[in-house]
Amino acid sequence: MASIFTKIIQKQIPSYIIVENDFCVAILDAFPIQKGHILIIAKQEVNNLFDLPHNIYIEMMCMAKTVALAIQKSFPCNRVGLSVVGFEVPHAHIHLIPINHLNDINFNKLKLTFTKEEFEHIQQTIKENL
Amino acid sequence: MASIFTKIIQKQIPSYIIVENDFCVAILDAFPIQKGHILIIAKQEVNNLFDLPHNIYIEMMCMAKTVALAIQKSFPCNRVGLSVVGFEVPHAHIHLIPINHLNDINFNKLKLTFTKEEFEHIQQTIKENL
Repeated sequence: MASIFTKIIQKQIPSYIIVENDFCVAILDAFPIQKGHILIIAKQEVNNLFDLPHNIYIEMMCMAKTVALAIQKSFPCNRVGLSVVGFEVPHAHIHLIPINHLNDINFNKLKLTFTKEEFEHIQQTIKENL
Repeated sequence: MASIFTKIIQKQIPSYIIVENDFCVAILDAFPIQKGHILIIAKQEVNNLFDLPHNIYIEMMCMAKTVALAIQKSFPCNRVGLSVVGFEVPHAHIHLIPINHLNDINFNKLKLTFTKEEFEHIQQTIKENL
């Protein structure tokens, strides 16, 4: 069965897209632990990031850098943390999270909730800073 | 003043090196949260990974992939987590950590301690799997 990320990539499930190319897509995490929490998702459905074809792995990391710099411009933060874990969805993805303290990148934290308007505003702000 | 990582790169402070090139070096983390916890450190002393020259950023990510695959072969684990945080040492680096559960990549965990012989054995095992 297709992963939830494949359904997002195929637009069967809506998402707030920041940027997209042939290999990967950056979207707002629907269950953010910080405002500006973004996922870079491989279009190819592979469990482990390190098992992706090398060029796709590099494309993911290039998009991660571009988007991280845009997050930094969009929201005041000490830095943008990057995390690859992958227990929740077995489909290669990278988390980008604006952080001021180590605990800001703790995935056990309570998820934030935003209205549709708030998500759209976050999306628009980051897109403008790309 | 040079960062502790620059002192390690310049061999003023000893470390257990896994692999090294002109741009970055992979060493065993001296304060590991898991057996096989590795740091990829940029030779250029820049605080934020995303502010490195693009070619060096890509070199770091290529070394991260190579070393992650070697860690996976060396120690039984569900996957290798990758994390960029950087509050402790303001010198761009990437953590690679073999993980079986989300909590295995929690930096608030108690650090593990190994003897010199144990560190050398971990180093040797990963190097053989490169």
